[in-house]
Amino acid sequence: MSRNICIYQEFLTAAHKEQINRTAEKLGFTPHYFTLEQFDEARECLQSCEVLYAHAPKLMREAPKTLRWYCCSSAGVDPYCKDPTIFANPDCLLTNTNAYGVTIAEHVIMVTLMLLRRMPEYEEQVRNHGWGNQRPIRSIRNNTFTVLGTGNIGSNVAQRLRGMGAAKIIGLSRSGRPAADFDEVLPISRLDEILPETKNLIMALPGTAETVGLLSPERIALLPADAYVINVGRGTAIHQEALMDALNGGRLAGAALDVMDPEPLPADHPLWNTKNLILTPHVSGNMTLGYTCDRNVEMFCEDLENYAAGRPLKQLVDRTRGY
Amino acid sequence: MSRNICIYQEFLTAAHKEQINRTAEKLGFTPHYFTLEQFDEARECLQSCEVLYAHAPKLMREAPKTLRWYCCSSAGVDPYCKDPTIFANPDCLLTNTNAYGVTIAEHVIMVTLMLLRRMPEYEEQVRNHGWGNQRPIRSIRNNTFTVLGTGNIGSNVAQRLRGMGAAKIIGLSRSGRPAADFDEVLPISRLDEILPETKNLIMALPGTAETVGLLSPERIALLPADAYVINVGRGTAIHQEALMDALNGGRLAGAALDVMDPEPLPADHPLWNTKNLILTPHVSGNMTLGYTCDRNVEMFCEDLENYAAGRPLKQLVDRTRGY
Repeated sequence: MSRNICIYQEFLTAAHKEQINRTAEKLGFTPHYFTLEQFDEARECLQSCEVLYAHAPKLMREAPKTLRWYCCSSAGVDPYCKDPTIFANPDCLLTNTNAYGVTIAEHVIMVTLMLLRRMPEYEEQVRNHGWGNQRPIRSIRNNTFTVLGTGNIGSNVAQRLRGMGAAKIIGLSRSGRPAADFDEVLPISRLDEILPETKNLIMALPGTAETVGLLSPERIALLPADAYVINVGRGTAIHQEALMDALNGGRLAGAALDVMDPEPLPADHPLWNTKNLILTPHVSGNMTLGYTCDRNVEMFCEDLENYAAGRPLKQLVDRTRGY
Repeated sequence: MSRNICIYQEFLTAAHKEQINRTAEKLGFTPHYFTLEQFDEARECLQSCEVLYAHAPKLMREAPKTLRWYCCSSAGVDPYCKDPTIFANPDCLLTNTNAYGVTIAEHVIMVTLMLLRRMPEYEEQVRNHGWGNQRPIRSIRNNTFTVLGTGNIGSNVAQRLRGMGAAKIIGLSRSGRPAADFDEVLPISRLDEILPETKNLIMALPGTAETVGLLSPERIALLPADAYVINVGRGTAIHQEALMDALNGGRLAGAALDVMDPEPLPADHPLWNTKNLILTPHVSGNMTLGYTCDRNVEMFCEDLENYAAGRPLKQLVDRTRGY
């Protein structure tokens, strides 16, 4: 029986396909490509495949027991980890693709500067053709940052904050293990101790049982009134009502959310009109940057080599842990 | 006769005044402080001063022949260089204060990312409570930049582009002398040769006879249609009508102007409604960042030491050159 790979992706260029074909052929695999519109065709093909490269919970539900590896092209795999019934084969390997650090980190630097420099207020002034009214601003240089999550995203953020002259970058992670690019990494259990001294809180956490509601009303109250909050991980990590209250009541200086709960955000949701809030519709880490797509394909090909050789997969997800 | 310094500034904190007092006393000077509202008092005091620390062409016009040093707290001194009659004493020393590189560079990084990541389009979508519509974006990482001006502002910009992973940063200056932080510095006479390969043009030039109209209609036409233009120097450096035409006609991808001509921009000026243009009301380098103010006072005190000792002033401006 030939070894088949089902590839259900929209972003692949001719060069990406060539790269996958070269790798697959060398290793004795045959890739089959489908665009997102070709769901039925992809499902049919999937029945005789041992590998799926996609980000589509609905297609994954249709996978046969013989599927041995699901390479998810997204970094967040919470939809697959929350619901084990999605895997017909309970031993199916799951990998994620941490290819989004660069683009998400650039988003974080952009919104951090927009908050520190009060850009939304200037933008409103400019929309009204107004001059004048210079406002006190702050700088990344010599400022301090608390980054929740020291993985691919958190590290890329820390590197860029460093490149902009930040004075101190503290990381928090489950393990608290030291990580390059951070001045210090603490276990997330020490969060309550860190929040009262946090001026800039950057959240880049996966969506797991442990991160849901992490920034609770009590913890939001621990932040200084001149603090900024930025979230590019999962919307569920923040108690949204408490955040909106704090922003509208002036108990926080501002926030930037690229992720929220739910997504898409309903048109009548109060988040849209919250004060001092920069909202973006979950675009910080999408496939719109060429580099992200290239890295995605590279990581798939690298783990295809590992898979074919029977080596451990580099991007393997611990499904009970959720990342 | 006591040696008097007239200080006509709004931004000074108690700590700044203490720092100036300490330096002045040590060197045998007496500082006299005035806020911007105290123009008449400042003018009267100025008549018996040999040093003025201010940024006020109107007050400078009232200076006596005995004024020996005007320390301008701004970086741009074009109002003083264009009109020599402003100096009653033709030998009066003029210094400027290049303390704005950090804050202007952070502004440049912010608007560069906003252009590359198409933030104005997302902001409009969010104002309409809209989701969806992911757009192709670009990155600072691996991108190339052309920076006009390799002084304090240009260098700070280059450092930060480097810290964000830029692939190549070319500087252009009058002399073309090599400068740290740039991969290459070319004389500005080679501008026409560089523009067709420029994806991101950052302009940080002083307002001099040589820079007026530098980015002419012909040169705007040399830029690729997917190029971005950012100006934080002087508005007069760009042929504004040609820039507006190129932006409205889609012959440039976008621009961000913090400086324009005239300032303040009249409420009915067509720049306000130009397509793909981020406008800010000359705020990139104001005194709203604590660091900028601290650096300003430091630089004044440093040159006061030089002045008292009869040494050359570090920030001395060549009034014929204009910077």
